[in-house]
Amino acid sequence: MERRDKYTLLIRNARRYDGSRVDIHIEDGIIVKVGENVTAEADRVLDACGKYVIPGMYNMHTHAAMTLFRGYRDDMKLFEWLQQIWAVEAHLDDEAIYWGTRLACLEMLRSGTVCFVDMYWHPDVTAQAVKDSGMRAVLTSCLLDAGNEKTKVNDRLKCEKAYADSLKWPDTVRFGVAVHAPYTVCRENIRWAADFARERNLLLNIHVSETDKENEDCMAQYGKSPVKMLDEMGFFGEDVILAHGLWLDDEDVEILGRNRVTVAHNVNSNLKLASGHAFRYEELKRAGANVTLGTDGCSSSNNLDVLEAMKTASLLQKGWRRDPESLPLGELMDMATVNGAVGCRVKGGVLAEGYAADLALVDVHSPAFVPNLNFLSNLVYAADSSCIDTVICDGKVVMEGRKVKDEDEILEKGAENAARLIAKVH
Amino acid sequence: MERRDKYTLLIRNARRYDGSRVDIHIEDGIIVKVGENVTAEADRVLDACGKYVIPGMYNMHTHAAMTLFRGYRDDMKLFEWLQQIWAVEAHLDDEAIYWGTRLACLEMLRSGTVCFVDMYWHPDVTAQAVKDSGMRAVLTSCLLDAGNEKTKVNDRLKCEKAYADSLKWPDTVRFGVAVHAPYTVCRENIRWAADFARERNLLLNIHVSETDKENEDCMAQYGKSPVKMLDEMGFFGEDVILAHGLWLDDEDVEILGRNRVTVAHNVNSNLKLASGHAFRYEELKRAGANVTLGTDGCSSSNNLDVLEAMKTASLLQKGWRRDPESLPLGELMDMATVNGAVGCRVKGGVLAEGYAADLALVDVHSPAFVPNLNFLSNLVYAADSSCIDTVICDGKVVMEGRKVKDEDEILEKGAENAARLIAKVH
Repeated sequence: MERRDKYTLLIRNARRYDGSRVDIHIEDGIIVKVGENVTAEADRVLDACGKYVIPGMYNMHTHAAMTLFRGYRDDMKLFEWLQQIWAVEAHLDDEAIYWGTRLACLEMLRSGTVCFVDMYWHPDVTAQAVKDSGMRAVLTSCLLDAGNEKTKVNDRLKCEKAYADSLKWPDTVRFGVAVHAPYTVCRENIRWAADFARERNLLLNIHVSETDKENEDCMAQYGKSPVKMLDEMGFFGEDVILAHGLWLDDEDVEILGRNRVTVAHNVNSNLKLASGHAFRYEELKRAGANVTLGTDGCSSSNNLDVLEAMKTASLLQKGWRRDPESLPLGELMDMATVNGAVGCRVKGGVLAEGYAADLALVDVHSPAFVPNLNFLSNLVYAADSSCIDTVICDGKVVMEGRKVKDEDEILEKGAENAARLIAKVH
Repeated sequence: MERRDKYTLLIRNARRYDGSRVDIHIEDGIIVKVGENVTAEADRVLDACGKYVIPGMYNMHTHAAMTLFRGYRDDMKLFEWLQQIWAVEAHLDDEAIYWGTRLACLEMLRSGTVCFVDMYWHPDVTAQAVKDSGMRAVLTSCLLDAGNEKTKVNDRLKCEKAYADSLKWPDTVRFGVAVHAPYTVCRENIRWAADFARERNLLLNIHVSETDKENEDCMAQYGKSPVKMLDEMGFFGEDVILAHGLWLDDEDVEILGRNRVTVAHNVNSNLKLASGHAFRYEELKRAGANVTLGTDGCSSSNNLDVLEAMKTASLLQKGWRRDPESLPLGELMDMATVNGAVGCRVKGGVLAEGYAADLALVDVHSPAFVPNLNFLSNLVYAADSSCIDTVICDGKVVMEGRKVKDEDEILEKGAENAARLIAKVH
């Protein structure tokens, strides 16, 4: 009888990484049974014959609505690029944010991502788009005062409003607080943000040490690195999601590890913007940090594909360290799934009973999976995300046979809104 | 009347990079007319409405049949990995080489590649697979004597046989001579190979400076770098395709530039095998070398996707050099197309009259191409090769709607042959 009140789904005949068959019974968004020959009634039975099952992926650093600026400016020096992006961004309105985010969600679902951590303006509009897409997200309203007194107060009001608004959203859409970066927010506001977030049990999101210049400036102004400065302010904890962390010294690494900070490594963005290549994955892992993957916004790198980021992150780590054993497949898969879930405070990223029913089914009928000697190796090192056939988020099928609801409308509205914004600056 | 003797194809309503419409008339494998509203009779009219046209890509370094070892061993130290690969490779037979190459060709076509440069055993078997796939290739029979007298003679006989065999193949399948590497082939055989190739006007293929260890060993043995040693032997010229060239000093770069050598940069393989990351693209380009892209075999990196290699090469170049303007889109596209054609001595890689009709049509109906502000940026930085819808090679349609002739049989035979070989060592 209980079944009638809850949406239930039974996935049959999927395969685990080792090729063994598995059925998965899902009730009300939670995996309740994983095993061979599971017999259960369900509102829907999904035959996954020939497909492998993986936990859905986490994109731990995005500016989702900026997908509208994809390809607007490339191959430019950072400051020139920023000026041009900001000029268009100034014209953003609710409609553009809504459709930009829907476009981002469509792209993320198609590459097997179920949850993302966003830092952007108007999180209430973003929240509606995430809800309509059937994804999960942590949306962080952003402080960026640049030392301006009026902005300082407005920023706080925005965060307070976002938090108040957030109370009406379902559990899959959570709110947090973002400090844009130590160099764009005054110390008083950084402290306020940390206090505000902790009083309300919200996650804290921040860009730190993306470039060496940022570190040098901080050193010149405060005599210490951004990480050390933030640490002395009591900023760090398990509730912090730190984007980039590309330029860290040993002491910085130790601080992030000791505080169990979640670090989002945005490999493609760091390379494309020429910020650098030598992310200290091994050191951060050993120190105890929770290392995850992000794509950054589509105007800095150009897509939101975590599967692609997994490969680049792993290969680059091996290449620059001169160690082929660095960032092996198992750790890479954890980075993209369960580590993300831990950072987002979702009991997810694992195919096991009691965990969130956030899954992707992978179609292996393509050259990248032949021969099928090691599924995970083929998935990460050989395939691209077009192998993702089906995505289940919060127990509901949100993509099937690569089709997502409303996708044609989303592509059309995305294109229209991008053209509309860009027309305003040309 | 002439038309009846030649296969003709008319592509209508395709789009160029800038979005403008273009029709392409092809006769007997050659582009004879490119323009708006081309009127011509043709055996086949292909409506490319909504699709963009690009020149087909060149994969300048492969060991195609090794696709059968994809995912067999990953994340291992080089020597341990080599031992394990060699153990399986020892059991290769004609059937395995044929189906391994068909699998490789299927994968290359699906990612928009029309031509590849292969270095492997039994080039006659490889040639049959290439012909049956409808691709182009330069197949180089390999010298690898390891100082062994008997092998020295056998190696030469193999090259002579391959050349004699090659005379029966169509123009799309060409033969060349490979020297495995300066450290695996004696100087006498290196000289013989260069003379043999030049007498017969064949291309010369060689692995050089993939690892720093190889350079150090050469320095210890001969007191000079591999490039300098080869240069003093008169090895280099426009007919040389040099794979890797990852560890080059300024003098090496100058030598390769002065001799207009074609260098195949295998970015993913170099990273995954932990050979290094700092390929000197800018220096080689400035010096006058013809820089191209390769994937290497699937047992070292894990796929044959040149479009993926383009993105990684460009991003890594920007990242390690700290220069976002390095390896921009236009140069990257040339690397993957016309530079490859020049290296292979094909008048191709360009959408223009008189060039080989080797083209790919790109489907832009997907999130990666929204907004469509810059087609080339979306293709390289945002999309993956699943956007390649149609491939035309030598004027014939070899993939359409992502379907390739015999693909199910190729996947099945590829899997079977891989399993058969691996069973022999377990």
